[in-house]
Amino acid sequence: MQFTAKQIASFINADIEGDENTIVTGFNNIEAAKEGDLSFLSNPKYEDFLYASKASLVIANKSLVLKKKITASLLRVDDAYAAFATLLKIYQDLQTDNLNGIEEYAHVAATAKIGEKVYVGSFAYVSENVTIGKGSKIYPQAFIGANVKIGENAIIYPGAKIYKDCIVGNNTIIHSGAVIGADGFGFAPNPDGTYQKIPQIGNVIIEDNVEIGANTTIDRATLNSTIIRKGVKIDNLVQIAHNVELGENTAIAAQAGISGSTKVGRNVMIAGQAGIVGHINIADGTIITAQSGLSKSTKPKQIFSGSPAIEHHQNNRSIIVYKRLPELEKKIQELERLVKELSKQ
Amino acid sequence: MQFTAKQIASFINADIEGDENTIVTGFNNIEAAKEGDLSFLSNPKYEDFLYASKASLVIANKSLVLKKKITASLLRVDDAYAAFATLLKIYQDLQTDNLNGIEEYAHVAATAKIGEKVYVGSFAYVSENVTIGKGSKIYPQAFIGANVKIGENAIIYPGAKIYKDCIVGNNTIIHSGAVIGADGFGFAPNPDGTYQKIPQIGNVIIEDNVEIGANTTIDRATLNSTIIRKGVKIDNLVQIAHNVELGENTAIAAQAGISGSTKVGRNVMIAGQAGIVGHINIADGTIITAQSGLSKSTKPKQIFSGSPAIEHHQNNRSIIVYKRLPELEKKIQELERLVKELSKQ
Amino acid sequence: MQFTAKQIASFINADIEGDENTIVTGFNNIEAAKEGDLSFLSNPKYEDFLYASKASLVIANKSLVLKKKITASLLRVDDAYAAFATLLKIYQDLQTDNLNGIEEYAHVAATAKIGEKVYVGSFAYVSENVTIGKGSKIYPQAFIGANVKIGENAIIYPGAKIYKDCIVGNNTIIHSGAVIGADGFGFAPNPDGTYQKIPQIGNVIIEDNVEIGANTTIDRATLNSTIIRKGVKIDNLVQIAHNVELGENTAIAAQAGISGSTKVGRNVMIAGQAGIVGHINIADGTIITAQSGLSKSTKPKQIFSGSPAIEHHQNNRSIIVYKRLPELEKKIQELERLVKELSKQ
Repeated sequence: MQFTAKQIASFINADIEGDENTIVTGFNNIEAAKEGDLSFLSNPKYEDFLYASKASLVIANKSLVLKKKITASLLRVDDAYAAFATLLKIYQDLQTDNLNGIEEYAHVAATAKIGEKVYVGSFAYVSENVTIGKGSKIYPQAFIGANVKIGENAIIYPGAKIYKDCIVGNNTIIHSGAVIGADGFGFAPNPDGTYQKIPQIGNVIIEDNVEIGANTTIDRATLNSTIIRKGVKIDNLVQIAHNVELGENTAIAAQAGISGSTKVGRNVMIAGQAGIVGHINIADGTIITAQSGLSKSTKPKQIFSGSPAIEHHQNNRSIIVYKRLPELEKKIQELERLVKELSKQ
Repeated sequence: MQFTAKQIASFINADIEGDENTIVTGFNNIEAAKEGDLSFLSNPKYEDFLYASKASLVIANKSLVLKKKITASLLRVDDAYAAFATLLKIYQDLQTDNLNGIEEYAHVAATAKIGEKVYVGSFAYVSENVTIGKGSKIYPQAFIGANVKIGENAIIYPGAKIYKDCIVGNNTIIHSGAVIGADGFGFAPNPDGTYQKIPQIGNVIIEDNVEIGANTTIDRATLNSTIIRKGVKIDNLVQIAHNVELGENTAIAAQAGISGSTKVGRNVMIAGQAGIVGHINIADGTIITAQSGLSKSTKPKQIFSGSPAIEHHQNNRSIIVYKRLPELEKKIQELERLVKELSKQ
Repeated sequence: MQFTAKQIASFINADIEGDENTIVTGFNNIEAAKEGDLSFLSNPKYEDFLYASKASLVIANKSLVLKKKITASLLRVDDAYAAFATLLKIYQDLQTDNLNGIEEYAHVAATAKIGEKVYVGSFAYVSENVTIGKGSKIYPQAFIGANVKIGENAIIYPGAKIYKDCIVGNNTIIHSGAVIGADGFGFAPNPDGTYQKIPQIGNVIIEDNVEIGANTTIDRATLNSTIIRKGVKIDNLVQIAHNVELGENTAIAAQAGISGSTKVGRNVMIAGQAGIVGHINIADGTIITAQSGLSKSTKPKQIFSGSPAIEHHQNNRSIIVYKRLPELEKKIQELERLVKELSKQ
């Protein structure tokens, strides 16, 4: 990449302070930026890095008052962090803008409906009756099962697999290795100890603006739908079981798992490696900390920790005592000795 | 789909109560069923839903005595749940019956032996000396390594990977992204802190009627075999390390992990995110609850919880006290104060 | 395979004790070896198996003094285990030596630079400006994104995915389903509860002699690089978040996870299902036991256990008391009763 300060200012509607012809060729953090880098200063605690930085161009808040001289040119905006993120997005989109059309060795069924400016990479498999909305990108080696509907401007990264009948919303991103719509884990025990498989004939519905991490698995419903509401963000290696529903803007960190038929509210935050049992309701705004195991329904905006999970502040207090358990036991033994002695008197 | 009550009755050997020409076009739960839906009633606690249901056709137990009038036609069978599952299976099989033959852009080595009615999808890679039994379906983008033997009527979903020399039984299902036979995690430390890789030249043997979830990994043995006995059911994102053996009909929920050389008995149940150390024996019928960490061999039919895992009822009692630890500590402090006072008297 | 004792002795520079024309056709453990098998004896605790073994040929340490007669021929070396591993490696390399050249239906961009003796399997996708060093093997269905650099003698197993701009060192092995360089989990909350995606434009740098397990995910950095130093060994289903750095020869067992920007030192050992929070420093030689949750930076060579993790020996002592908590509570109740009685006197 190569841009002038003036060009960048036009992308993010910034005021230039310094040389508008400053050229930048890369992005970097303020603490690591080299000459030729574009950086940003948002959090005041990094301000000292600005004065020492070799960055050629820095996006800063209009409210920032410089305390020392700097070598960088500045681009002043209302929100430096948001402006920097916007720039990265523009840069990224530029790089993939040319992806368009169906590459050689892609399989696209005759009955599939492919919108304008859709990219289908080599070795991608688009099954019968699939619909793909305009501007969506199906990278190489992705699998799109029969009857799947994909909205506009969605990105399906290399090797992501979407089983038949599932629905993917607009602007949704599915990373490599994610598996959407595999069979839920449903078996009925037979008297002889074997299991009968309960066919899983539902689907997965993923709404708009969702992001699903690499190698995450979201199982199809037994009947009806597993539902991922709009704005949900899911990290890598997460397990979402059959018939789960995730409310809008809920965020789930890596390696967490949610068991079958649990209904998760809006803006819930589930940290890494946490687990949630099946058939419960997680209220809006609930926070579940890392490695917790939640087995009961929650009320709004509660925080849970531990396995089994209890209220966070209560767990914190128990943890402190847990660490002192050996001393506590000694105190009890000493008390027993003293009381025995007193009883003899 | 579109079926009449009469057609469906013939599939599951049911007695029709009501209009044999009732037409159904979908499956649904009794509580959510709409007109045109086929549903079932098995668990008596859902009986009230039957009287309010708009389902057109309901499979019910012969033993059910109606307490109110219903609008649906009934199909009477001995076991409504099993009959419903059977129907779903028939419906599902109908949908994939036409998958047959080798699609364009599939790679099938000249030395591979492919049975009758086998499907090999586009971009699937079938290596040298592979054997695939009749009726098996190898979906697009699956990888079947050299010398792999796959039984009859097995299903290998899109993008599943089976490394060389592994064996897969009849009727076994392997979901997308599962990796069978990657190298076990075996390294010998060198004096300089680096590691020497121990080549893993064994294989994985998966017997009949096994199901393996999406993105689950089962490592090949160092020597000999990692063995998954018949009827085992494994959920998504599970890790089975090298040289593990899983006994018949053992079930493992999502994100659980079993370390190397551990031998698991029959009909063991391992819940989500549980972990088991290497080189131990898990007896038949052991139950390991979610997020537990089992580090010792077990006796038959015991239940384990916690990390490290102890007997379930013992752990439950400790959990209750754990939550009260802060109060316990206060009681001890109060006792210390009182005893000190008493001692002064 | 079929080799004579003499041939094998020449591979590992061994002294033959017995018949140099002994023929072996397979490898096996000393306790399970059959006639025709080559085995080894390294750990003295398995010595009794040697005397009962039907193995035709056994690699043993020069220092071993036989206590009974054996039927096997012996190959004497300084380190039997290392010699056996070397043999397995030679055997394995022989099997893949013929993999060479670009198979039909592989996609190799015109701008890609492919070294000598490189194998690119069918349905592999090698993007623009990729460099692949000599002797590397890109198995079928692997994805190599734009500008990726792969060193010499690297192995990328079927279906592994490497996003654009990443770097993979010499002799590095990446197993099936691993995803290198997917977007880090970075989102900025908007006032309305939705999230703005922070584009992730950094990369992943994997140095030499690294092994990465099946379905493991290593996210690209937001800016700059997620770094995996030389000699690191990572098992299956592990999550490495954006901007993490792993020091040389660090080993991570299955299903462990490391959150964003954490810096892990050299020769650290992280056991299965352990989790580490973001933005901390793990010192050289730290050991983190299975299922632990580490939330604080460490000093060299400490061992941590528990969730939240504390020092291992401290946690062990607390665990012992934890199991006795119900009895402890009873003792306190009894003390309260006794003290109350004493107070009345």
